[in-house]
Amino acid sequence: MGVIRREETICATATGSGGAIAVIRISGSRSFSICEKIFFPLDKNVKLIDYKGFTVIYGDIRSRDEIIDDVLVTIFRAPYSYTGEDSIEISCHASPYIKRKILELLVNNGAVPASPGEFTQRAFMNGKMDLSQAEAVADIIASSTKSAHRVAIDQMRGGFSAEISRLRSELLTFASLIELELDFGEEDVEFADRSRLKEIILSAKELSDSLSGSFLLGNVIKNGIPVAIVGKPNSGKSTLLNALLMEEKAIVSEIPGTTRDTIEDTIVIDGIDYRFIDTAGLRETTDVVEMMGIKKTREKIEQAAVIMLVDESTDDANAINERAAAIRAITDRSEKKLFILINKADLSEPDQMAQLEKQIIIEKGEALLFISAREKSGLDKLRLKLGQVVEKENFNSDNVIITNIRHYEALLRVSESLGRIEKGLENKIPEDLIAIDLRQAIHFLGEITGEITTDELLGNIFRNFCIGK
Amino acid sequence: MGVIRREETICATATGSGGAIAVIRISGSRSFSICEKIFFPLDKNVKLIDYKGFTVIYGDIRSRDEIIDDVLVTIFRAPYSYTGEDSIEISCHASPYIKRKILELLVNNGAVPASPGEFTQRAFMNGKMDLSQAEAVADIIASSTKSAHRVAIDQMRGGFSAEISRLRSELLTFASLIELELDFGEEDVEFADRSRLKEIILSAKELSDSLSGSFLLGNVIKNGIPVAIVGKPNSGKSTLLNALLMEEKAIVSEIPGTTRDTIEDTIVIDGIDYRFIDTAGLRETTDVVEMMGIKKTREKIEQAAVIMLVDESTDDANAINERAAAIRAITDRSEKKLFILINKADLSEPDQMAQLEKQIIIEKGEALLFISAREKSGLDKLRLKLGQVVEKENFNSDNVIITNIRHYEALLRVSESLGRIEKGLENKIPEDLIAIDLRQAIHFLGEITGEITTDELLGNIFRNFCIGK
Repeated sequence: MGVIRREETICATATGSGGAIAVIRISGSRSFSICEKIFFPLDKNVKLIDYKGFTVIYGDIRSRDEIIDDVLVTIFRAPYSYTGEDSIEISCHASPYIKRKILELLVNNGAVPASPGEFTQRAFMNGKMDLSQAEAVADIIASSTKSAHRVAIDQMRGGFSAEISRLRSELLTFASLIELELDFGEEDVEFADRSRLKEIILSAKELSDSLSGSFLLGNVIKNGIPVAIVGKPNSGKSTLLNALLMEEKAIVSEIPGTTRDTIEDTIVIDGIDYRFIDTAGLRETTDVVEMMGIKKTREKIEQAAVIMLVDESTDDANAINERAAAIRAITDRSEKKLFILINKADLSEPDQMAQLEKQIIIEKGEALLFISAREKSGLDKLRLKLGQVVEKENFNSDNVIITNIRHYEALLRVSESLGRIEKGLENKIPEDLIAIDLRQAIHFLGEITGEITTDELLGNIFRNFCIGK
Repeated sequence: MGVIRREETICATATGSGGAIAVIRISGSRSFSICEKIFFPLDKNVKLIDYKGFTVIYGDIRSRDEIIDDVLVTIFRAPYSYTGEDSIEISCHASPYIKRKILELLVNNGAVPASPGEFTQRAFMNGKMDLSQAEAVADIIASSTKSAHRVAIDQMRGGFSAEISRLRSELLTFASLIELELDFGEEDVEFADRSRLKEIILSAKELSDSLSGSFLLGNVIKNGIPVAIVGKPNSGKSTLLNALLMEEKAIVSEIPGTTRDTIEDTIVIDGIDYRFIDTAGLRETTDVVEMMGIKKTREKIEQAAVIMLVDESTDDANAINERAAAIRAITDRSEKKLFILINKADLSEPDQMAQLEKQIIIEKGEALLFISAREKSGLDKLRLKLGQVVEKENFNSDNVIITNIRHYEALLRVSESLGRIEKGLENKIPEDLIAIDLRQAIHFLGEITGEITTDELLGNIFRNFCIGK
């Protein structure tokens, strides 16, 4: 949005498409006067403005004499609303026509259509939440797994902000000591014991490092793990994918009526999403699909964190080893895991497979698994192995986990500054140079929580929100 | 649903997928006690059950110690709710995980997932609305045009029910007179003046006929008009379709942020949807698409109410006449309109086209139009012609319009029974035979409003609702 228009009253549909009911949100100082022109309470003797906050009123929306809908209107009075402003929510029937018409009426009476994230941006501007909490709102809405949800809700409820303010207060302690020395600079006094200063910086840096270090896990929790399925034609890639997804479907539809909003080609293990990359080709049932061109396979492997190479139990071990080597040649093995899957295990004798197991070369961190996608055997083991890809030690504790790349980058800058201070203290660098790094560290922390912002920064953040939030 | 389970407390997401917030509905006698177990108000001193109806409470949903979401909960107390039962609406973040989890918690605490339309069915069972009003709720939600919305909201607000009760009360007047005669049957008295009776029946039949007669328009309003675009390859069918749809897009997005929920390949003229049939083929940009096989074209024409035959201005008039004749040969001309469109009019000289206009044969009710899909000329005229396909005389008045085929069929039976009574009165048929037809007419009226229902009938009606309504 760029320009911040706090004086306008904004409106947007806040609910998704389809469904039985829809909610239209209005926020801003003119919310009541605008809604009064289009909403007519059943009880004609009471005006909208006379109702208390947190009450619901039944009535109808009219355009001149035409009745648009029977609705429920909920009143929120500043500052006790999501945005901190006077706000109104209209709960109407989820008809495309009705939603459009109500928005049109609101706009014709002086409201403006809200930009993406504008409600949350106002909540931030009005001090209802800090910037990292505002960002967590979008993450919460997007969360489809338990773990993504947990880190997002922790962040929205201020868990991360608390850590940042702990870090900031350590730096402020340090700053006050340094500034004191600077004030008396010419007298060459040292108020602060140098080893005490160093301790503070070390502890702050440790905290900053541990927060930024959690990003690897946080990113996986938020965005899932990309998995590539590769292999020669007819090795059973598509059958394997379907078997995994079918299992998934069975898991998520345990409670009738609560089917998971369809996320194509994703399975969840221990609360982490595993996203299969570019599976369109695998689904083709006709066998005209030739072994994919090197370029396509390479692209897939480049995007993946886990590569599942699907071979057949009747394959020659040398051929399998060659294919695995070809994959290793184009991957950075510290970042990508190779799983060699020997499919159609039901078609071979046990000793044949034992032989194969001996001959196939696997390297550290890789896995070799015998499965039958058709018989759905070996899939539990595969899921277990996939689950082990993520180092989750930090997850079950109450540690704060960073999932936002903006926060991560800011924390890296904080750590850098702190590293320079640490060195500076060792080298007895003048206090005014240390103060520069200190100010920088505090600046970057302020950017995380939004104490320091620019229109551009806010624009970048809220642009990715959905409209109505 | 078949079985009606009024003792259960039901729950479902009532909003669509996506969006920023979602609303989960709970209804039934245990709504409060179930929600009390998972919802924790910010104000810990007040219990859910202590709040008045029509109030909103802020708090959080928890699963044991895990916080699922910050939510707003709205309380409705029987009978002042949509269903007439104790009801609660939970407004949460629209995360797939959160929605799933809250439903899971509700189910684990004793609620059952709602069947499609079960909330509205309860509203009907509890006397909050009659059956035709309940049916209108689904129509309102589906309405995407002004006219579809208008007839649905009239019906929901009881306009149609009022007409039916007017019809019914006329029949009851008649019935009371006839029954009186039957009571005194053996004495052969005639309490009612025969011409008075006839008057009543004629007036009732007129009303019933006029209601059922409105179905033709009502069906068009509700379901739109199917339009087929046919013609030889490269005549510009796909360009024409795109030009019409682009115009449409421009029309609906006049107000920023209020884009119409995408309804593929539909244009709206005077509040009526024109739905283009099977346009997938037309969209192919490669010209490999041969003239469609006769079977496919025939199917398309069979489904259509308007057939647009697209020819080129450089075509031979005889060839055009032949193609038009082929279409006429497989259509019932009273029900289908043929539009002959001469495309690429910009490529020909005016006198060439005048010549063509003379040579092309058009029959009564058909249209011949010169257009250029590429230059977007002649499209206004085309829209105008399409608009005239619908006879809208009855629409601008306050007449009640039938859109539901169930109501239409019931009204046809009513008219039939009334027709028999009319004849019976002329032929001086015994009163007890007339009473049979009368009872039948009253029965069918009762089926419309739901005074007479069966589980099967209810099942059929509510099965087509969405879940959460």
